[in-house]
Amino acid sequence: MDGHRVTMLGTGLIGLFYTRTLHGRRGRDRVEVVYSRSGDRARAFADENGISHSTTDLEEAITHGSTDVVVVGLPNHLHLEAIELCAKHGKAVLCTKPLARNAEEAKRILDTAEGAGIFAGYLEDLVYTPKTLKAVAAVRGGQIGDVTWARSRETHPGPHSAWFWDAEQAGGGAVVDLGCHCIEIVRSYVGKGNRPVEVAAWTDTLVHPIEAEDNAIALIKFESGAIGQFEVSWTFRGGMDLRDEVAGTEGTIWTNHFLRTGFEMFSSGEGAGYVAEKAETTSGWLFPVGDEVAELGYVDMFADMFDALDSGRDATETFYDGYVVNAVMDAVYAAAKSGRWEPIRIDDWRGEPTPRIARTRREHDGKTVIKEEQMPDGRRKLILKDEATGEFSDVVV
Amino acid sequence: MDGHRVTMLGTGLIGLFYTRTLHGRRGRDRVEVVYSRSGDRARAFADENGISHSTTDLEEAITHGSTDVVVVGLPNHLHLEAIELCAKHGKAVLCTKPLARNAEEAKRILDTAEGAGIFAGYLEDLVYTPKTLKAVAAVRGGQIGDVTWARSRETHPGPHSAWFWDAEQAGGGAVVDLGCHCIEIVRSYVGKGNRPVEVAAWTDTLVHPIEAEDNAIALIKFESGAIGQFEVSWTFRGGMDLRDEVAGTEGTIWTNHFLRTGFEMFSSGEGAGYVAEKAETTSGWLFPVGDEVAELGYVDMFADMFDALDSGRDATETFYDGYVVNAVMDAVYAAAKSGRWEPIRIDDWRGEPTPRIARTRREHDGKTVIKEEQMPDGRRKLILKDEATGEFSDVVV
Amino acid sequence: MDGHRVTMLGTGLIGLFYTRTLHGRRGRDRVEVVYSRSGDRARAFADENGISHSTTDLEEAITHGSTDVVVVGLPNHLHLEAIELCAKHGKAVLCTKPLARNAEEAKRILDTAEGAGIFAGYLEDLVYTPKTLKAVAAVRGGQIGDVTWARSRETHPGPHSAWFWDAEQAGGGAVVDLGCHCIEIVRSYVGKGNRPVEVAAWTDTLVHPIEAEDNAIALIKFESGAIGQFEVSWTFRGGMDLRDEVAGTEGTIWTNHFLRTGFEMFSSGEGAGYVAEKAETTSGWLFPVGDEVAELGYVDMFADMFDALDSGRDATETFYDGYVVNAVMDAVYAAAKSGRWEPIRIDDWRGEPTPRIARTRREHDGKTVIKEEQMPDGRRKLILKDEATGEFSDVVV
Amino acid sequence: MDGHRVTMLGTGLIGLFYTRTLHGRRGRDRVEVVYSRSGDRARAFADENGISHSTTDLEEAITHGSTDVVVVGLPNHLHLEAIELCAKHGKAVLCTKPLARNAEEAKRILDTAEGAGIFAGYLEDLVYTPKTLKAVAAVRGGQIGDVTWARSRETHPGPHSAWFWDAEQAGGGAVVDLGCHCIEIVRSYVGKGNRPVEVAAWTDTLVHPIEAEDNAIALIKFESGAIGQFEVSWTFRGGMDLRDEVAGTEGTIWTNHFLRTGFEMFSSGEGAGYVAEKAETTSGWLFPVGDEVAELGYVDMFADMFDALDSGRDATETFYDGYVVNAVMDAVYAAAKSGRWEPIRIDDWRGEPTPRIARTRREHDGKTVIKEEQMPDGRRKLILKDEATGEFSDVVV
Repeated sequence: MDGHRVTMLGTGLIGLFYTRTLHGRRGRDRVEVVYSRSGDRARAFADENGISHSTTDLEEAITHGSTDVVVVGLPNHLHLEAIELCAKHGKAVLCTKPLARNAEEAKRILDTAEGAGIFAGYLEDLVYTPKTLKAVAAVRGGQIGDVTWARSRETHPGPHSAWFWDAEQAGGGAVVDLGCHCIEIVRSYVGKGNRPVEVAAWTDTLVHPIEAEDNAIALIKFESGAIGQFEVSWTFRGGMDLRDEVAGTEGTIWTNHFLRTGFEMFSSGEGAGYVAEKAETTSGWLFPVGDEVAELGYVDMFADMFDALDSGRDATETFYDGYVVNAVMDAVYAAAKSGRWEPIRIDDWRGEPTPRIARTRREHDGKTVIKEEQMPDGRRKLILKDEATGEFSDVVV
Repeated sequence: MDGHRVTMLGTGLIGLFYTRTLHGRRGRDRVEVVYSRSGDRARAFADENGISHSTTDLEEAITHGSTDVVVVGLPNHLHLEAIELCAKHGKAVLCTKPLARNAEEAKRILDTAEGAGIFAGYLEDLVYTPKTLKAVAAVRGGQIGDVTWARSRETHPGPHSAWFWDAEQAGGGAVVDLGCHCIEIVRSYVGKGNRPVEVAAWTDTLVHPIEAEDNAIALIKFESGAIGQFEVSWTFRGGMDLRDEVAGTEGTIWTNHFLRTGFEMFSSGEGAGYVAEKAETTSGWLFPVGDEVAELGYVDMFADMFDALDSGRDATETFYDGYVVNAVMDAVYAAAKSGRWEPIRIDDWRGEPTPRIARTRREHDGKTVIKEEQMPDGRRKLILKDEATGEFSDVVV
Repeated sequence: MDGHRVTMLGTGLIGLFYTRTLHGRRGRDRVEVVYSRSGDRARAFADENGISHSTTDLEEAITHGSTDVVVVGLPNHLHLEAIELCAKHGKAVLCTKPLARNAEEAKRILDTAEGAGIFAGYLEDLVYTPKTLKAVAAVRGGQIGDVTWARSRETHPGPHSAWFWDAEQAGGGAVVDLGCHCIEIVRSYVGKGNRPVEVAAWTDTLVHPIEAEDNAIALIKFESGAIGQFEVSWTFRGGMDLRDEVAGTEGTIWTNHFLRTGFEMFSSGEGAGYVAEKAETTSGWLFPVGDEVAELGYVDMFADMFDALDSGRDATETFYDGYVVNAVMDAVYAAAKSGRWEPIRIDDWRGEPTPRIARTRREHDGKTVIKEEQMPDGRRKLILKDEATGEFSDVVV
Repeated sequence: MDGHRVTMLGTGLIGLFYTRTLHGRRGRDRVEVVYSRSGDRARAFADENGISHSTTDLEEAITHGSTDVVVVGLPNHLHLEAIELCAKHGKAVLCTKPLARNAEEAKRILDTAEGAGIFAGYLEDLVYTPKTLKAVAAVRGGQIGDVTWARSRETHPGPHSAWFWDAEQAGGGAVVDLGCHCIEIVRSYVGKGNRPVEVAAWTDTLVHPIEAEDNAIALIKFESGAIGQFEVSWTFRGGMDLRDEVAGTEGTIWTNHFLRTGFEMFSSGEGAGYVAEKAETTSGWLFPVGDEVAELGYVDMFADMFDALDSGRDATETFYDGYVVNAVMDAVYAAAKSGRWEPIRIDDWRGEPTPRIARTRREHDGKTVIKEEQMPDGRRKLILKDEATGEFSDVVV
């Protein structure tokens, strides 16, 4: 029942959220070493969070003897180097999202980790929100039939740290920052073995004076015929809008993770305080979130990572998933540029063939039943097609 | 203060909704003549709705001396003939959506009506819902700044009448049936003078055994840079999902017209009755709609049509709007087929040039301000870009 | 098909809402005469609303030859005089809520109108909201079984006009202003023939420097055993909160008329405008209402009143209902003062005896079934009581 | 960083929820001993939950050397005996809600635990939901001003175990089962030092064939003038309805813990599965809860209990709180019986005097400002009272 001891790389918002999650509510895992490129930030972070060791030496942090797991919470362009060091020293590694800036870099990271045989978990938190976990389980259990469509929406007024806005360091804009979540959420609903085939996309820079896109929409076709859809924005007004919708042949799921969770507050502005991440106002109608790190999936994500490590299984989200996400994002950028559907290039597809969404033909009086519906008076109405003549008719039974 | 006397063409669900709207709640306008291709249906409809005259003769219905307005509530392939007769006889005409099966047919209808100089209103009801009217007014009033994105979603388990399912009579599937609403809602939000430029789209037939699409998604680029998005489906489970979302540089609007309107009911199933159009169940949690014809826009739509007719102005929705919608739908089908963005062909664009969504550059310490945000402690944080070096930084002020 | 011609008494907010409702959207009924105690206000109101005649002479307004119906929209203490004049001149009268300041005054009004044999409608609008009409119909249809509990909540930051705050003119505070709505909503759900028997109540003046209560809660026992509950407040922050909840043996109904109706807007405050009656803010998250007069019941209320007048039937809400409401409010004040349940005195109860909410005894293995529930695995669990021994047990079947 | 080792008394639903909470998600505290009156149930529970020791000997369970904390999850009438044994053996104890069947028994339990000097935590979980914790913090921080009203509602179709239905074992019905939560939630909002003074109440048995009440409503007056209100029911249809509302002079809070949390699912019924505790249906519109034990407060409750034990402070909820709750419930039953407000008898009140909710008088032109409101055109309207003449007026400034 001993817990894990963690080296945390990075002291930004994500490093802070990760550390608070691990140290919160009676957990048995702890951060013991923290690394930052700045000594001041490393020391301050260690002090605030009760961490014994801080350092500005990346390799020292990774090889530190008091820890057995490394968490990469660095800007995107620094993931590769950190993971190569983990691989070199045979240390388990968990990497924040996105895995890399593009599929080529992601593939190098994947091959490095797999070549070294280290445990490699992909910290895609939003797949682990309590709502998403239960919703995915309901889908797997057949409660909404075959998934036909999944929409994931992640929008807010823009990220907190400077490096996100620099396309060079980040590898892109809102797509790389937020679309990576959406893609993995969509894959979790349509089935992770269901191959993403091609992408159509729109990106634009409408508000902020930057080179990278601050708004994007993409459509992803899957092998089964299902369609994925995502909208990301760094210009949304009103807080952080994290909503997913799934349609199936037998049902529908809607989740709202942040702005409408059954917690509503009006304040005239007297005694105003913190509401929630990326909330824009502290008066008027406010929509706080009960326990942010739990609702955003951090608690269940680390539980899965460490449980997987303990039991010798893969995490639910692996570097391979991170690589697939990067491959889809590459196709998003290609499609936005070419103005046409672009294929998703995955050299190493590991999923099984997925059958087309089934349409079973039913007959009534020798005609094809197109649709059946209940009328207000309780009777059933059938829309029928005569396949011989091509004529459509309706009948009430 | 005298009202109008109406010839109703068609006795299907839409003719019934129209008639009930006109006859409901102390209105001064009435249906006096009803036409159906079936004499039985015409007579039954006249009896049920207290209408004096019924006929199976289209020209007789249109020229009937006791009426001054014709409402076309016929299947799509019959619009042209009916409107040509109205034009021939110089009678005001209101036509249900979509105006036609394609832009060519719509243009013929438009030219016919304008050539004859008759009043010609386009019965696009969902632009007239009380929520949409107030939301569009808020947008026009600048309350959400420049519109950057508008999403309209119209999905249900499939239409009630047989002819909808026949691509020949209808001119298409879910796009023609539902997308026409979405396009006009999106145009109302981004501005009707804001030219729709090109379209990307996905369509598929996933569930029903028909040739036409039962699911579609489309993106519409407007001259201002704004993006429109719609999702339509005949395979949605859970009722009729009519939701719109608008994002602007200064705000956000969400409307839900049918499934979540502040009216919730649980019933064990004892004493079950009618809930709402296209509701799928009569037990469990139900979401009725208070006054369907008002919430769906019929009341305000006819008020606008008749007020326009009385005052000699155009209706808010005209045949020209119907033609533009058909032009966009043609581009949707072309894009779905070609797999690329397709231009929207409008021979006769009547809008004014619309400027690009504005991005005003702000400076702080000689650097470009990328973003400004409020921190939990009340201070302001700026993300800055040094245009000379290209470096990004942040500063708290 | 001719409409009615109306004398409007009063030019305050309620007179304006009434007039706009009548003149809006193609109605055939119109206000032709308006009366105010101030000539300036009468003239201004007539000008703004296209009304031919204005006067400061009450009797002249009531007897004016161009109208056939009088609407009383005056402060509470002026209802009696106006209605006596209507009775004297045999003119149909519709009176705003509450009918009077107390049951004694209400009974005098009722007797006066009934003695003269005039049509007398009680303008209790919130019973007529589209949601309430459909919800009451669902209850009448048995969809939630026997009603066990009905809660009505009406709260806002306080009324707009000075006279409301003066207990002398108004007859009370928040109870008289808002509780009258709640009582009639509760009666509509539990059944208007179901006699209200006694009341417990709390009132207090917590925030405003007035003598009348600015907050109150009351419980109303009905003959069937059902319990009514209302909360009223003039100190609510966040807008106007109008919500009703009904519990029955077979179901539940929740309605939200104003603050959460499926219409949500965020605005940074640029271009701020009017949101809705009693909304407190024009920036941040806002919750507008599509069509206020329709959502508040005015449209359906006047339709019922005039249809009733045309067809010679009583309106759904009559002066008798107004009298019962006043009797309940008298008991609320008595109970708040005495600190105990107080009987509701209705001299002239016209309802039928209402049976106690039924409890049918079911047996399993010779024991009484207390409860039956479905377990996650689909089996049914019974809680049983052995009436001989008094022992409780459970069994899974 | 070592965790605690727990003896769990009781293997019902509450013992299971407690154990799953402790064993879930990387916690460092574990159940090591389980006690049940039935050896079969004790062994089965131990097997399912990986617990080393099981026993039917209460004193053996409590004194077991491998544990340092006892959790009492037994029926209400067995709490006293278990806690007396903990006191005798000087072992820390956490007791489920309600503490006892009445205030006298609760006082004996309190005195026993305090006399022995043992750590004694009261497991009132719903005060610890993430939403409630954050909402109470907002209230403490002044974000809604002085609390004027707090409503807590806890209703469902009835409890799962037989003993709840037996008034002898339970001490009462829905009040004892559910009202205890409501009272403590209300106290947390109005301030736990704010003395509850008197109670008015209604109870009835409307549906189930039992002696205890299956429905109740109560009003609680506090020293500050604030009013608490709760509704409890064992006959609610539609699932488990847990909602709280708080009104303050500067704001409003609404929380919904179970039925509307931003997670909505429609299922035709194919592949139906478990939805949530006390959900009534597995098809139609369903409202699952992401992580039930977290949303119901168990996670944060045990974290507080063990953190308090580690640091030598009291838990947020102590046996004293449990005693106060029982005292209020006694007054509820007394008031329901007497039909009048009944005083709450607390022999040992430990709170500080709480001032009356403040009303500050403001003047304008020598008159008292009754209310100030913003008009649609942006101007401010004042309602004024002339204290000399008693006249009310309004002015726009």
